Amino acid sequence: MTADGIFIDLGSRSYRIHIGYNLLSSAGELLRGIIRGEKAMVVTNPTVGFLYGKVLREQLEKTGVLPVMAEIPDGEEFKSLSTAEGLYDLAYRCELDRRSPILALGGGVVGDLAGFVAATYLRGVPFIQVPTTLLAQVDSSVGGKVAVNHPRGKNIIGAFYQPSAVVADLAALKTLPEREVRAGMAEVIKYGVIADGEFFSWLEENLEKALNLEPAALEKIVTVSCRIKAAVVREDETDRGVRAVLNFGHTVGHAVESLTGYKIYRHGEAVALGMAAAARMAVGMGLLDRREMDRIVSILDRAGLPVNVPAHLDREDLIRSMHRDKKVVSSRLTFVLPVAMGKVEIVRDVSEEIIMAGIGN
Amino acid sequence: MTADGIFIDLGSRSYRIHIGYNLLSSAGELLRGIIRGEKAMVVTNPTVGFLYGKVLREQLEKTGVLPVMAEIPDGEEFKSLSTAEGLYDLAYRCELDRRSPILALGGGVVGDLAGFVAATYLRGVPFIQVPTTLLAQVDSSVGGKVAVNHPRGKNIIGAFYQPSAVVADLAALKTLPEREVRAGMAEVIKYGVIADGEFFSWLEENLEKALNLEPAALEKIVTVSCRIKAAVVREDETDRGVRAVLNFGHTVGHAVESLTGYKIYRHGEAVALGMAAAARMAVGMGLLDRREMDRIVSILDRAGLPVNVPAHLDREDLIRSMHRDKKVVSSRLTFVLPVAMGKVEIVRDVSEEIIMAGIGN
Repeated sequence: MTADGIFIDLGSRSYRIHIGYNLLSSAGELLRGIIRGEKAMVVTNPTVGFLYGKVLREQLEKTGVLPVMAEIPDGEEFKSLSTAEGLYDLAYRCELDRRSPILALGGGVVGDLAGFVAATYLRGVPFIQVPTTLLAQVDSSVGGKVAVNHPRGKNIIGAFYQPSAVVADLAALKTLPEREVRAGMAEVIKYGVIADGEFFSWLEENLEKALNLEPAALEKIVTVSCRIKAAVVREDETDRGVRAVLNFGHTVGHAVESLTGYKIYRHGEAVALGMAAAARMAVGMGLLDRREMDRIVSILDRAGLPVNVPAHLDREDLIRSMHRDKKVVSSRLTFVLPVAMGKVEIVRDVSEEIIMAGIGN
Repeated sequence: MTADGIFIDLGSRSYRIHIGYNLLSSAGELLRGIIRGEKAMVVTNPTVGFLYGKVLREQLEKTGVLPVMAEIPDGEEFKSLSTAEGLYDLAYRCELDRRSPILALGGGVVGDLAGFVAATYLRGVPFIQVPTTLLAQVDSSVGGKVAVNHPRGKNIIGAFYQPSAVVADLAALKTLPEREVRAGMAEVIKYGVIADGEFFSWLEENLEKALNLEPAALEKIVTVSCRIKAAVVREDETDRGVRAVLNFGHTVGHAVESLTGYKIYRHGEAVALGMAAAARMAVGMGLLDRREMDRIVSILDRAGLPVNVPAHLDREDLIRSMHRDKKVVSSRLTFVLPVAMGKVEIVRDVSEEIIMAGIGN
């Protein structure tokens, strides 16, 4: 990786993604041009804060910035307006002004919540993502979606708000539980299916290296994933059109997560079985060659990810839940379906029969 | 006013402000091209809802849109995250999707709150302003600032979020209490001072007509005010530079509002005495001719607006409060000061002596 990182061209909202090893310990240098305020707030959780809070704090102090450390409890249930209120309060008490950046040090929950607070505190302050999970590095830290949950649904309250910079330290993944690595890999595989057949083939050959976090493989998958996501986001920053392709696997995935109360599956695992279901639907509709479906299901399986919707989940409930998904406009069900390796289409009005066959009985 | 209204050119966030008489009863026609969803939420308060809720609801129904009516209590203290939560909940229960617009029918509180919910529900849904107070028609409905208050300060939580359309029905001002008309006039006078000396002279000659809501005068002041504000906002949508000129009179005004618990002065009244104070400061610094100061103080006085900071407010407390204002970066106090009629300058590092002389002892 060059020191300049990947440049995400979004006009006045452009930013850079820095990807590499041990970037945390040079974060001060990387962010020197970005941070202008006298103070900054670092939002993290106890686990990540214990591991990496000190080095980030020291890096900020080195650049002459006074860091206010804010720990939020770990878990999706704390991605709420009420946790956000606590952060507004802390920011205001510590006199953070509109130049003071908010840094998210952690995974998706920390990034989404801190990003929402950054988007709305004083009508928006600079936001810096420091993702420490594979999922956050390849997906949630890129693209500007920030949100908190509402008691009735996930990510109901949010904004599109681009970071000023992303610092993805690959060394931080060494402390990530293996299950989190596998769950993150689901989104990596997704990028291959939706946009880059060659990358998918490379993944088929190098999956184990990536799962073992071998440096060259890890750097490749994070870089390629960010590039693909950035290209899609650039086309459709506010999710009105082509950005929907990033939801490949997510319609079934969200429904499964919702029906299991977000307790059984990690997000990536639910997306994995959603991708397998979508691949089956595509074959059922004659859009995809059966061998390509087999490749998708097989690589997910090799990554230790689930590929079948559990039998005990009521199929009618699943379909009802898909209709409730906020991405569904009106009463038609729309799916992102693969039509070749590296190419998907947005298919409207998928019949319930095809869906049922895809998710299996 | 032409049927097309004033076009606010903000690229992909452009919109039109419609200004005229009895526009509410043709709102359906005006908004036909804007509203695409099957449902809409109308946020209002009991007073305004009683007067104009029915006609707006009928207009929406006429265009085939199902309106969900939401009343919030009147008063700045309800411009809170907790009121916003109630609206998210209602929107979600009524299955508003991301195409469903949220309409603000009322004054600044309704507009700011409904706008914040529109900016953040499902990461942003279309937002339509239907301002029914003079202040909202000439100021808060234009420019895209939306916010709720935090227990520790006003507008601490917010966003820049442009409406899809503004419908300013001048006939609605007939039911506005006289004190509200005078308070709104403070911002109208402000536009003359900061940007248009000719308009200021016109106001000097036609103030009583405007205060009596004579149609031609009213249409002129709302139209000119919107044009001036729109021009400033276009230069600096997110308030990083020249937009600060709109804060003329607001530094002292906010401090007075804050120290009196927002209970004694209407916002426009506090701005009026802030403008008089700023004019005195400008004279004190040798930036403004004394006769121009007299013109400013005199027209405010004729409009029945206060021009003196009340004697019982502690001057040290006032200055401390100005420092707390979120617009103050670092520890320097910055003021917008008039240098000629129709021209202001942003002056940094104003001495405490000058400030004290401006606010009087």
